[in-house]
Amino acid sequence: MKFEIKDRDASGRICKLNTPHGIVTTPNLLPVINPNKMIITPDDMKKLFGAEIVITNSYIIYKDEELKKKAISKGVHSLIDFNGPVMTDSGTFQSYVYGNIKIDPIEIVKFQKKIGSDIGTILDIFGTPDQSKVEAEKGVVETVKRAKQSLDVKNDMILACPVQGSIYPDLREKCAKELSKINSDLFPIGGVVPLMENQRYSDLIKCIIASKKGLNPAKPVHLFGAGHPLIFPLAVALGCDLFDSSAYIKYANDRRMIFPWGTLKLDDISELPCCCPICSCYSASELKKMNKDEVTILLAKHNLYVSFAEIKKVRNAIYEGSLWELVERRASSNPYLLDALKELRSLENKKWLEKYEPISKNKALFYTGENTIHRPLIFRIHNRLLNRYKLKFFTSIIFPEGKKPYSKMYSQEIQKILNKASDVNICVNSKIGPVPFELDEMYPFAQSIFPKKTDEETEIYVKEVLNKFLEDREIIFWSNNRTLNEIESTGNKGHDFDLKRISAVADMQFGNNASEGLFDGDIRVVKSKRTNKIRNIFVNNKHVLSMRAGDGMFTLKIDGGRIFHEFFEYPKLRVVVNDESVSFIKEGKSVFSKFVIDCDSDLRPLDECLIVDQKDNLLAVGRCLLNKVEMLSFNYGMAVKTREYIA
Amino acid sequence: MKFEIKDRDASGRICKLNTPHGIVTTPNLLPVINPNKMIITPDDMKKLFGAEIVITNSYIIYKDEELKKKAISKGVHSLIDFNGPVMTDSGTFQSYVYGNIKIDPIEIVKFQKKIGSDIGTILDIFGTPDQSKVEAEKGVVETVKRAKQSLDVKNDMILACPVQGSIYPDLREKCAKELSKINSDLFPIGGVVPLMENQRYSDLIKCIIASKKGLNPAKPVHLFGAGHPLIFPLAVALGCDLFDSSAYIKYANDRRMIFPWGTLKLDDISELPCCCPICSCYSASELKKMNKDEVTILLAKHNLYVSFAEIKKVRNAIYEGSLWELVERRASSNPYLLDALKELRSLENKKWLEKYEPISKNKALFYTGENTIHRPLIFRIHNRLLNRYKLKFFTSIIFPEGKKPYSKMYSQEIQKILNKASDVNICVNSKIGPVPFELDEMYPFAQSIFPKKTDEETEIYVKEVLNKFLEDREIIFWSNNRTLNEIESTGNKGHDFDLKRISAVADMQFGNNASEGLFDGDIRVVKSKRTNKIRNIFVNNKHVLSMRAGDGMFTLKIDGGRIFHEFFEYPKLRVVVNDESVSFIKEGKSVFSKFVIDCDSDLRPLDECLIVDQKDNLLAVGRCLLNKVEMLSFNYGMAVKTREYIA
Repeated sequence: MKFEIKDRDASGRICKLNTPHGIVTTPNLLPVINPNKMIITPDDMKKLFGAEIVITNSYIIYKDEELKKKAISKGVHSLIDFNGPVMTDSGTFQSYVYGNIKIDPIEIVKFQKKIGSDIGTILDIFGTPDQSKVEAEKGVVETVKRAKQSLDVKNDMILACPVQGSIYPDLREKCAKELSKINSDLFPIGGVVPLMENQRYSDLIKCIIASKKGLNPAKPVHLFGAGHPLIFPLAVALGCDLFDSSAYIKYANDRRMIFPWGTLKLDDISELPCCCPICSCYSASELKKMNKDEVTILLAKHNLYVSFAEIKKVRNAIYEGSLWELVERRASSNPYLLDALKELRSLENKKWLEKYEPISKNKALFYTGENTIHRPLIFRIHNRLLNRYKLKFFTSIIFPEGKKPYSKMYSQEIQKILNKASDVNICVNSKIGPVPFELDEMYPFAQSIFPKKTDEETEIYVKEVLNKFLEDREIIFWSNNRTLNEIESTGNKGHDFDLKRISAVADMQFGNNASEGLFDGDIRVVKSKRTNKIRNIFVNNKHVLSMRAGDGMFTLKIDGGRIFHEFFEYPKLRVVVNDESVSFIKEGKSVFSKFVIDCDSDLRPLDECLIVDQKDNLLAVGRCLLNKVEMLSFNYGMAVKTREYIA
Repeated sequence: MKFEIKDRDASGRICKLNTPHGIVTTPNLLPVINPNKMIITPDDMKKLFGAEIVITNSYIIYKDEELKKKAISKGVHSLIDFNGPVMTDSGTFQSYVYGNIKIDPIEIVKFQKKIGSDIGTILDIFGTPDQSKVEAEKGVVETVKRAKQSLDVKNDMILACPVQGSIYPDLREKCAKELSKINSDLFPIGGVVPLMENQRYSDLIKCIIASKKGLNPAKPVHLFGAGHPLIFPLAVALGCDLFDSSAYIKYANDRRMIFPWGTLKLDDISELPCCCPICSCYSASELKKMNKDEVTILLAKHNLYVSFAEIKKVRNAIYEGSLWELVERRASSNPYLLDALKELRSLENKKWLEKYEPISKNKALFYTGENTIHRPLIFRIHNRLLNRYKLKFFTSIIFPEGKKPYSKMYSQEIQKILNKASDVNICVNSKIGPVPFELDEMYPFAQSIFPKKTDEETEIYVKEVLNKFLEDREIIFWSNNRTLNEIESTGNKGHDFDLKRISAVADMQFGNNASEGLFDGDIRVVKSKRTNKIRNIFVNNKHVLSMRAGDGMFTLKIDGGRIFHEFFEYPKLRVVVNDESVSFIKEGKSVFSKFVIDCDSDLRPLDECLIVDQKDNLLAVGRCLLNKVEMLSFNYGMAVKTREYIA
């Protein structure tokens, strides 16, 4: 099964999933097709809503003699008249709803194979949230056992093996690990419908996170039974790739309309708060007057328009790097979702999320409220300020928040200070945390939009970061000439601001001491004539780095790579490729995941890296698209985009 | 000009505006029609997007010989081929954009009258945000002068007289007052386009609030030049009724797409994050490939679908009582809008907003984040707890937040306490503030959804309210039997919880001492057999109150009205009608605003009230739809819905 990452944001990703009947872009939504009653045909699902893949139930087909006969003779695609990818479920949910069902777990997998399902599902044991841990563990053991047996008979069918374990994170993680070990193809997260029905979103995301932690990151994850768009952004941000919706028709039957922010009963609506083709064509009172069949199909269509638009919205947010913003905005629609979001604030979860978070984004970081300061990217820059940035001097002068870039806004004040003493630290006490002047063009310090006043929770949090950052230093808050008089003249005057900037950015980006290693010799900084911003950096006449105008971070040139390679010990900054691929890299080809055999665990998506062979000979420099665990797991797709190579 | 309130929420309202060419429901959006270039015809505006009224520019028509001739001979409706209401602008905005224009201010009003405009606009002086106060005041004086002159020549045309005054709140309020005094028909808030263009939403809403404070509340208010849906919810919540959009085409020309949460450039979009008929039909890449004319019209249509859907969303939020939630959710999309929202937290603004805020809502109150606690309704209940609720005893026992209703959840604990001492106050320290047990079924205490943990800002705020509420009392935080041992046995045991509940609700709802006045004699409480909730209350065998199951508040019966009428001095709870209408009231007809001559200034929308004649004879009881200043201003529509009357 080919599955590769194309783009990413938060811990979410845009992937391509290859199936025998076509490629599916994830995140995506699989509308549930009832083979007995196709209110909307799979063909219309494709034409009207852009559905790429649908899901139907093999158990229902198996139990109905006529459907079964037709499915066996002509295949499931013909049965439901759809020539795209078809996933089938196994009857597990029916066993949850109706109690024990009579079907052999291996028989139903063989049946799915027989009717030509693109993605089949094992008959797993549905773990309910009210189970005891002992019961839940029994279910997990049986699920894993059935998965093993099913994998033996599946042949080339993609097989989905759901992660169970009720609401016990350790069981979820254990189940996920065991299913990953036996090489299942696709991982639904099962047993979560009762959590969603009761809006227990905190428990839901605990289940998702525990499962994801145990799962092979190179395989698609399906949040089984999630069809309400309210949960899509957060679930995707945590790494879910697929959703399925029977909600569109269940809600429609119940005269309920789905919106990205919640659900409303048609009869409680005075005016349709939506611009979909249905809501743009009919009024609420027209819909209310229709007969049941008529209104059900229109509401189902509305529900699908809205759900698929939300999938597109989530994907677009990944492309533009604004997925956390979408997640936070959605949480403001639902207090239970807000509770769920707060689960992500634990140190353990922040550390996990930070591993998958890209280094930089296409779009400025927008503050939405008190959740913003807890984003993994901000957690990272705070950590790097504390651990990587070198606060050189004892005296620290702190400026208040101002117009960006700060070094421009406060240029006169800074000049006055430096004329008196250049051996002082100068920072801005910004809404996002302390920002040393040299970092004021680096993402996200320059590329962030905050309100004039943030909330008190954020203020307290940021103050703590400032205090840690300036621990044991003398702190002087700037207030014009009064401050200037306070600063002791030290005799040290003047300074090279460009050198300060490139050193600080290099340390933040490449790690502790990077600047020491790199900027040793004759340094030349070339600036843009138009913007006066730093463009290229030469060391001993060699072009080692370029600075990107967009995010104020460096791209690494091969000559910079050579210096780092010598300066930093293995495995720092390295991506190690196997011998087989060395010749390709030497032709400038990019690094594909399947060739990676080791990697610096500190590398993050979009980080600059050194590409080396198994003997740590430098081959090239490039930009990571994946982190270590991903590079070592994925069999398809690019791991590093090579920039410059040694021929 | 007939203009009446039909429904309301926050300081916003659903109204009907009568024009010669039809009735317009507000809030509404007027698409701007360029008579020279109708990309989308007014007819399509109506058919596709449900536009009820359009706006075009009389200055452009006046300056073009051909258009002018046609408009004079056949009328403006024929010129743009639209048989619905047409509003015309005067050239003021052109004078702002192009500098001085040559047109006589009275001539252009006469011209608008001549071409049959339903709503004409005076040629006011556009006050820019960068003006000095002196300049701005000159503009205001001239605008008011021209308004006076224009009103003399307008005949039966509805005349819009814009409020100017730059960013000076006192000038805005003064201008608004003077325009109201001379009886203008409709009030645009002018000069705000530069504020919106620069996202200066804080300044924008200062202008809106200052204008609204000075304006006659019985007239429609138009936020001139506001066409981006991002601002609709907040502007409506502050009392704006009309918007006009040229944004739909301006943005489309610039390849920009409008969304309720902001604007995106088509070329920055990978997947269209929208379910409108355009975005459901085309992909981003298809749109990007189209030629300019083709894509412009499609983007313009998208922009209109989204904008009109947002208007419907705002109106639906008013119907369901969730407008503040929508406002707060929108603010999380834009940090500048968040700043604007914080302007509403000043005591002065809270007091103003509280006057217009309905007493109760159809929908539970949802927490969205740190802005929720500052809503006018919560401001009101905190004030009423401090001023109206009687905290009878010295010792106060505080329970932690729990499942609602609290008196049920904690019933055993309460019983234990009361068996020891009934002379203690018992409250819950809820997320929304202190909730005495007797009030636990009253809106919004029972009807509110908060997350498990709110933000620290809210926690601090609520803690302060609790401290004020329990000032000078002994406070015991409940912790099971340990607490029980702390409580001193006073000998006072047992209590009538129903009596406590009805007394507390009556005091909160009708004011200080209401319970003393009302519950004097033989009290009988009738409960629902099914729910065991209080339904009806009899005093000396007379049915005085009913309790609504939905919001736990009282409806006042005529026998309750008699008691209050005797107990409370004039004008408490009164709405005074003129002699002309007495006979109608005595037949059970409702009270129309034009008959109201005085009113208790403490009455709020949806409050219960006494209807009396000019000599303070009680005629009936009913439910207010308007507050005092509205009742005295509106000439059309209902002021009080009569419930029971004295025949």
